[in-house]
Amino acid sequence: MGSSFGKIFKLTTWGESHGPALGVVIEGCPAGLPLTVEEIQTELDRRRVGQSKVTTPRGERDRAELLSGVYEGVTTGTPISLITYNADADSSKYDNLRTVFRPGHADYTYWRKYGHRDHRGGGRSSARETWGRVAAGAIAKKILATAGVEVYAFAREIGGITGETVDREAIEQNIVRAADPVAAEAMIAAILAAKEAKDSLGGVVEIRATGVPAGLGEPTFDKLDALIGQAMLSVPATKGVEIGAGFALARSRGSASNDAFHAENGRVFTRGNNAGGTLGGISTGEEIVVRVAVKPTSSIEQEQDTIDTDLNPQKITVYGRHDPSVVPRAVPVLEAMLALVLADLLLQNRSARIAWPD
Amino acid sequence: MGSSFGKIFKLTTWGESHGPALGVVIEGCPAGLPLTVEEIQTELDRRRVGQSKVTTPRGERDRAELLSGVYEGVTTGTPISLITYNADADSSKYDNLRTVFRPGHADYTYWRKYGHRDHRGGGRSSARETWGRVAAGAIAKKILATAGVEVYAFAREIGGITGETVDREAIEQNIVRAADPVAAEAMIAAILAAKEAKDSLGGVVEIRATGVPAGLGEPTFDKLDALIGQAMLSVPATKGVEIGAGFALARSRGSASNDAFHAENGRVFTRGNNAGGTLGGISTGEEIVVRVAVKPTSSIEQEQDTIDTDLNPQKITVYGRHDPSVVPRAVPVLEAMLALVLADLLLQNRSARIAWPD
Amino acid sequence: MGSSFGKIFKLTTWGESHGPALGVVIEGCPAGLPLTVEEIQTELDRRRVGQSKVTTPRGERDRAELLSGVYEGVTTGTPISLITYNADADSSKYDNLRTVFRPGHADYTYWRKYGHRDHRGGGRSSARETWGRVAAGAIAKKILATAGVEVYAFAREIGGITGETVDREAIEQNIVRAADPVAAEAMIAAILAAKEAKDSLGGVVEIRATGVPAGLGEPTFDKLDALIGQAMLSVPATKGVEIGAGFALARSRGSASNDAFHAENGRVFTRGNNAGGTLGGISTGEEIVVRVAVKPTSSIEQEQDTIDTDLNPQKITVYGRHDPSVVPRAVPVLEAMLALVLADLLLQNRSARIAWPD
Amino acid sequence: MGSSFGKIFKLTTWGESHGPALGVVIEGCPAGLPLTVEEIQTELDRRRVGQSKVTTPRGERDRAELLSGVYEGVTTGTPISLITYNADADSSKYDNLRTVFRPGHADYTYWRKYGHRDHRGGGRSSARETWGRVAAGAIAKKILATAGVEVYAFAREIGGITGETVDREAIEQNIVRAADPVAAEAMIAAILAAKEAKDSLGGVVEIRATGVPAGLGEPTFDKLDALIGQAMLSVPATKGVEIGAGFALARSRGSASNDAFHAENGRVFTRGNNAGGTLGGISTGEEIVVRVAVKPTSSIEQEQDTIDTDLNPQKITVYGRHDPSVVPRAVPVLEAMLALVLADLLLQNRSARIAWPD
Repeated sequence: MGSSFGKIFKLTTWGESHGPALGVVIEGCPAGLPLTVEEIQTELDRRRVGQSKVTTPRGERDRAELLSGVYEGVTTGTPISLITYNADADSSKYDNLRTVFRPGHADYTYWRKYGHRDHRGGGRSSARETWGRVAAGAIAKKILATAGVEVYAFAREIGGITGETVDREAIEQNIVRAADPVAAEAMIAAILAAKEAKDSLGGVVEIRATGVPAGLGEPTFDKLDALIGQAMLSVPATKGVEIGAGFALARSRGSASNDAFHAENGRVFTRGNNAGGTLGGISTGEEIVVRVAVKPTSSIEQEQDTIDTDLNPQKITVYGRHDPSVVPRAVPVLEAMLALVLADLLLQNRSARIAWPD
Repeated sequence: MGSSFGKIFKLTTWGESHGPALGVVIEGCPAGLPLTVEEIQTELDRRRVGQSKVTTPRGERDRAELLSGVYEGVTTGTPISLITYNADADSSKYDNLRTVFRPGHADYTYWRKYGHRDHRGGGRSSARETWGRVAAGAIAKKILATAGVEVYAFAREIGGITGETVDREAIEQNIVRAADPVAAEAMIAAILAAKEAKDSLGGVVEIRATGVPAGLGEPTFDKLDALIGQAMLSVPATKGVEIGAGFALARSRGSASNDAFHAENGRVFTRGNNAGGTLGGISTGEEIVVRVAVKPTSSIEQEQDTIDTDLNPQKITVYGRHDPSVVPRAVPVLEAMLALVLADLLLQNRSARIAWPD
Repeated sequence: MGSSFGKIFKLTTWGESHGPALGVVIEGCPAGLPLTVEEIQTELDRRRVGQSKVTTPRGERDRAELLSGVYEGVTTGTPISLITYNADADSSKYDNLRTVFRPGHADYTYWRKYGHRDHRGGGRSSARETWGRVAAGAIAKKILATAGVEVYAFAREIGGITGETVDREAIEQNIVRAADPVAAEAMIAAILAAKEAKDSLGGVVEIRATGVPAGLGEPTFDKLDALIGQAMLSVPATKGVEIGAGFALARSRGSASNDAFHAENGRVFTRGNNAGGTLGGISTGEEIVVRVAVKPTSSIEQEQDTIDTDLNPQKITVYGRHDPSVVPRAVPVLEAMLALVLADLLLQNRSARIAWPD
Repeated sequence: MGSSFGKIFKLTTWGESHGPALGVVIEGCPAGLPLTVEEIQTELDRRRVGQSKVTTPRGERDRAELLSGVYEGVTTGTPISLITYNADADSSKYDNLRTVFRPGHADYTYWRKYGHRDHRGGGRSSARETWGRVAAGAIAKKILATAGVEVYAFAREIGGITGETVDREAIEQNIVRAADPVAAEAMIAAILAAKEAKDSLGGVVEIRATGVPAGLGEPTFDKLDALIGQAMLSVPATKGVEIGAGFALARSRGSASNDAFHAENGRVFTRGNNAGGTLGGISTGEEIVVRVAVKPTSSIEQEQDTIDTDLNPQKITVYGRHDPSVVPRAVPVLEAMLALVLADLLLQNRSARIAWPD
């Protein structure tokens, strides 16, 4: 259980890091949406490994095959299956992990839960699983585009360095995907220093959506905030999520934190956006603003204490091809997650009223 | 859609703040669990209004009726229905809210989503909806107790004042439910000062679970972290959630944040608990630690700018019976949410293996 | 698990035959639907007991209370809770059933499944559970009416006597709810004879829907046929379901059973309706035609062989207030089930296309 | 929506008849089950086309690739992905079907529902979709085997010829999969005569399960009967389902149809099995007996009246590679469906009680 997400636009991911292939099946994509595998590949290329000096050199091409649900370049309303075959999986490096648990990884918990596990490269718990999320997110974005919604994300903070400005154009211009080109340079330097020290860095990714119509979100357990919470914290290495002013609101006062309503030319706005675009778990029409805490990469080339499957103490040094910070590559994944949440809620909202005013 | 939570142990809440009644139906509670309505009432009394000088004087007794699913004091495996009739609902105060939107509330978003709404007391978006969550949470706790799991929560921070110690016994001894009795006094003073200033305060609730067996959580979208994210952010007034060291991990290094494994007498531990009791979205056996950001109460007796249903500008001052900080009353609700997540995952985990070792 | 039905328009029933109350919660009813409790009561009165000489004299008034989801006579999009308190439950007659299993009833299977059960009046397995289905069905019918869909049902066959004509007006004019007034008299006589002989009769209920737009049904597991199969066979005492010509098609040839398409004035028809209004699990626009086999009432005042909870042989004679044939009262229940299936699929179909032609 | 089935053991099928590939993803298969792709292939070979003179000559090898969820021959608890590439798809024959609707097929209803469709070979509505069901069913059978449950099926009736005996060994010894070897010869003759006449035949498949423990089935909407109803009627060409004595019960009396309980050596039996192994929607421990009506193949090489997408009248003769009766090939598919229902309910039942007696 647990490999599916969404109620109408629903994805199911499958596959292990070092198995033959990974993939995703998307149910509930409406018919009539123009869609090509190239559009999906463009998004997948953004999360791909081996992109720069701050990422792992594992050379997967991550080529997507589109196997169903699209005919003559248009969706048919039937399930969309996307698959990628693993090519550059070198499992030999993982032989020692069959019996020894890496600190900070899911090795131990999978072993306790399932008894039998594919330990190679983290198996199912590997971030390679996010391939399917990004592929599905590419389709979600196309659905959202029909309603004028755009989703984007960037590295807000890495290793304690915080971007101060948000220049959306800058994001894909630097290898850490910061929206502040000045901070980007400092972030890159911090990552390289951590790499040199055989250590790793965490950070904060900020994800936003513009053009979101008011009304998305299903009270009370599928509030927009709640689904964002689930979506973001289902991504490997995330340990926190906040919406709008988030934890800063805990230190605020009602008189300062309430966003006043006003209207101009028939459109409603709020002064300020402490709420991050939601009230009562339903979108207001303001920009959706989410921030996610990403922990430092657990794999480090330093000796650490651990145990083995016989519960004997062991020392472990995790060699391999690891990102010194996963923040840059988490950006397109978390962006995809917001797209998935919004696309599903957009479709769910079609049932909110028995009839819509003309 | 959206009023249900859980896959096996599943609750559905219903009811509006000023409707005739509120309730919850719980499906999937296993048969054979001793359960009385008094046990449920004990938990409900903790969230009840009118408890102290820092909470609203609305005098609902919140009396639960147990209408199904229990026979001769033991659950039967059939749905459990719990209901409470609203008694002290004074709707007259809300007449002006029929057409004017309170800042920070769901008035505007419900109006945009549904067109037709029960505006009285926030209707469905009122925190009164949490009655059913706490009632269901009481049953979840009993299920958890059969596995040795205990859940508790406390006010970690209110109005910028942070509790430093965690004395579990102290929590119910002070009216803000802080685990640090010294900080509790300062928090109370801060709330009373805000009340005097016709303002409100936010804070942070910390929720923990002890005795959680390793193995709970369903990769990849129903990771323990992900369901905690959904559960917590589905509660009114919450705007952020973090697990373990949470956002602090964003500023940490792998060498500092990885929790090393060790074992003693056949039991596995970690040194430190930055992960908050989960790895790869599955419980490790360590204490689950969650913190939730609660925003300041949106209802304040100060004049604020807003609009009405014709989008004309209006001034509004929200009178009524409101908590100057909802943190103390959010404690049992958020505690219930963690219990609900864990009870469901405990039952889901029964299917993790085809057979369990003797 | 198992007490919910539907994906968007979703109902959850709860309650035992001799518990304090029974009820239903309906999620996903769109906002803006005019709805009164009287409309619901009208449908409930049709399934009520004590209606005639062919039904049980148990005198429940089955009065519905509407507790949420409707404000000022219009639905709000939030969950609708309906409840009825049991009044005429006489549990004393069931004391001997605590340890002895009635043949043909669920006593034994509930005991094996749950260990602990409410044996009084069948507990959860009682047909009283269908109260909530009929209540929810009344709302489903109102949703369907907005799309021009009507659902009706009648006793097609009782005790081997088959109605030959379908006069929709006749149905509620006779106490067995046959659509053939002549056959109705023979059916009544057969039931009274069976009652006299302390025996019971089965029969066939036919359920139809007119005005169903083409396109309802979700391939492949939620085909219209499949959901009809689930819905009908979830009703107590049903043991078979067929659509269109059904089992007769097993003895037919393709040249005879295919319904040819033709069109008139822009509307598509089929010549004949062997398919019963569905092709590939999707509605064609023709009338939906379903027939359901109902077994003879299991409770009969004749001595039967059985066992007790110690597996010792026992004799049992089931006294009490039982219908000699449940067919007449099954009519509104099965009618409700078709309405529930169609209303949910109508709402699901809103997501079939990314955009609809003007 | 609608391409998934099951709550714990859940499959999602994808793929079109003439797309690049078809497949299935299975979630919720417990870890620790030995499983090889050869075992799955054995079941797939049973449903494969081109098997005999009574089936279509389309030559798909239906080779399964196992892409995830199994490591070192044992399931890991993660999703199992199975895929087969289409090889012998000759789409040119279907060019005329782009605009003309075949009677008895889903061409028209898909067109009305989705607007845009893959018309080649029926696209998603093709019986090729059942490939994934049989693949998943093979796994379900292995789960069931761990509990001593076996599922089998056979042609009970074809073209009006009914098998009278049930010799389980005989089933795979004749090309129509009848359990009565004498009737098998008559069925074969009938099919060949229909083929000669360019016509097609329907029939009845009987599906049974032995060794089913008492207690499977989830009241009230997921009763064993209800899920069987959904499962069977989700298979192409089915138009009716009955359990136990089924429709014959409609003509019976309670005194004749109740199955009396007795016990021997601590095991409970019923005298007779009119109920088909379920009471109140929960298994009794007796054999599960289900019969499904299969309509005659819709594709016949005779001229039929129909319309095109402009609603103009057309004549159509359906050439191509079609089974004159799909009953023989429906046998393994319907058998798989019962296995899928039972495996899921077996896992669901693990949560029926808080604790099981030792």
